[in-house]
Amino acid sequence: MDVWKVIESIRPVDVQMGQEAIGHINNLTKPVGSLGEIERVAMELCKMTGTQFPDVFPPGVIVFAADHGIAAEGVSAYPQEVTAQMVANFASGGAAVNVFTNHVKGLLEIVDVGVASNMDLAGVHVQKVGYGTKNFAKEPAMTRDEALLSIKIGMERAKHTIERGARLLIVGEMGIANTTSASAIVASLAGVPARTVVGTGTGIPSEKVTFKAEVIEKAIDLLNPDPQDPIDLLSKVGGFEIGAMCGAMLYAASKQIPILLDGFICTSAALLATRLSEHVKEYMLAGHQSVEPGHKITLDLLEKKPLLTLNMRLGEGSGAVLAYPLVQAAAKMLKEMATFEGASVSKGTI
Amino acid sequence: MDVWKVIESIRPVDVQMGQEAIGHINNLTKPVGSLGEIERVAMELCKMTGTQFPDVFPPGVIVFAADHGIAAEGVSAYPQEVTAQMVANFASGGAAVNVFTNHVKGLLEIVDVGVASNMDLAGVHVQKVGYGTKNFAKEPAMTRDEALLSIKIGMERAKHTIERGARLLIVGEMGIANTTSASAIVASLAGVPARTVVGTGTGIPSEKVTFKAEVIEKAIDLLNPDPQDPIDLLSKVGGFEIGAMCGAMLYAASKQIPILLDGFICTSAALLATRLSEHVKEYMLAGHQSVEPGHKITLDLLEKKPLLTLNMRLGEGSGAVLAYPLVQAAAKMLKEMATFEGASVSKGTI
Repeated sequence: MDVWKVIESIRPVDVQMGQEAIGHINNLTKPVGSLGEIERVAMELCKMTGTQFPDVFPPGVIVFAADHGIAAEGVSAYPQEVTAQMVANFASGGAAVNVFTNHVKGLLEIVDVGVASNMDLAGVHVQKVGYGTKNFAKEPAMTRDEALLSIKIGMERAKHTIERGARLLIVGEMGIANTTSASAIVASLAGVPARTVVGTGTGIPSEKVTFKAEVIEKAIDLLNPDPQDPIDLLSKVGGFEIGAMCGAMLYAASKQIPILLDGFICTSAALLATRLSEHVKEYMLAGHQSVEPGHKITLDLLEKKPLLTLNMRLGEGSGAVLAYPLVQAAAKMLKEMATFEGASVSKGTI
Repeated sequence: MDVWKVIESIRPVDVQMGQEAIGHINNLTKPVGSLGEIERVAMELCKMTGTQFPDVFPPGVIVFAADHGIAAEGVSAYPQEVTAQMVANFASGGAAVNVFTNHVKGLLEIVDVGVASNMDLAGVHVQKVGYGTKNFAKEPAMTRDEALLSIKIGMERAKHTIERGARLLIVGEMGIANTTSASAIVASLAGVPARTVVGTGTGIPSEKVTFKAEVIEKAIDLLNPDPQDPIDLLSKVGGFEIGAMCGAMLYAASKQIPILLDGFICTSAALLATRLSEHVKEYMLAGHQSVEPGHKITLDLLEKKPLLTLNMRLGEGSGAVLAYPLVQAAAKMLKEMATFEGASVSKGTI
């Protein structure tokens, strides 16, 4: 697959279809606007898919896992081997994303795009860019070619999931220390100090948060990633799973498949994608807003309003999967609700 | 059914089971607390049901419909006949609550507890307290006996739905002008002026909102309902569907069935219920927060945090039904996620 051709093929959403959707929604048997954000989501789905009655079932959920050299700096509450342990947990169906994806009858794929150990497990697609990134406190996380390869693998996995039948895409991740990588990307792209972006991740104490910000700021000084060049940024401070998530979202947009965003790491990849395609953002909906301070920054930059704000910070795609039934309900509203005329209901008199 | 016996039979929730649930949740394969409100909901379900692995499927959704004499004052954006028209729409499956209840595979019942016209429709349970309430701008909405009867009918319908298999209860409503009635109840119970409670309802312009508040304040001056006596309050400014919703929630609590609250009118009935039973509140979860200003007031009084805040204001139970998959996901998290030990995942090191 040619990464640049996929990116070039992303078209603007269908604004006219959005206008038609508003007309239809305002004629359904409910006070105009009374379903609030559900109506907005429905309209967005019409624009994204270019159809009057979009179908978003089943959702495809791809969880990309990879390790991070930066974990050696002690920026996470968990040891690095947890990445591999959690991949095994995904494979045996015991993680939150398994339970929630089953709940919504989604299509789940687990992809090892760079875990630091061998993952020979049924149910895990292994396509490593490497055995974890390098420690970006000392050297670039990966080469430029590896960054492009991670994006390409993400595109290929999205293609696979869409070919399995997915009508909406959720990308999730697992990678100990990846909020550090995501924070570095977002601080660079937003042009703000790392300390305004970093949070507790999986649950580090506040003094560790300050340390984490310092690690990032020193690394940015050392490596000087170019925020105008997303591939340079990804290669210097990114992660294999972040590149893969970015690629998967770009591919979905190229096929007019709506993307439901998860937490902070997912949106750091989404933000990277917007620097590669001016239109990819139009295919995104925000599933939730987490407690990571950087998540609000990314959602604001993406101009997305979250469906859920439930103080979650798990990742794996779990927040987006929890938000998915709302998106599905929006699509069903369009297709299944009666109109005022059809149901012989009087319209408002004021 | 004896209304007072049902009320007396409502017991406190099982606090010990809640403590055990926290221990279990903290041992599931995710950082402690990382599923935020979903974890809180799971713990509440354990307390309510007194079980370690609560089952909340299927949800029962009862929509109570009734007319309001106060509609004659011109407080709604819609003519009174819309109540009956929407009941017909519920019967034929075209309303939002139908679509969303189908979406979650819930058990739906439509109850005419006081529509102003005859409702001979398949799929509508007709058990009228009367043909609409009286205009409470001029006289009490109903008698004390009618208020008690509306509560009793609600209890009976909840019993029926629980006997059909419902493991969680949602009550919704349809009744043109019923936000005016709900606002009067909440203003009395909260001890605040009506103007701080009233909103646009189905969509009236701002000058009408002021008028609506004046109508309520004059009515309260005229009828002087006793906020210490919930039956007096319900009879003077309430509605048949509000009484029925109150009764249904009381019955559910008496059977340890979790209640998922909908919008402003639902919570006005919930607030009434809390004045009849000190423990009923413990069985309630808040589905969403609507744009009606009074809804935040009622949720605060009920000490409930909404799962969704999506600028909705439709009623019918629709907001609660949209929130339901989150509650179901919380129950599935308890039952289906692996523990750290079970999945051989290392715990946090910091």
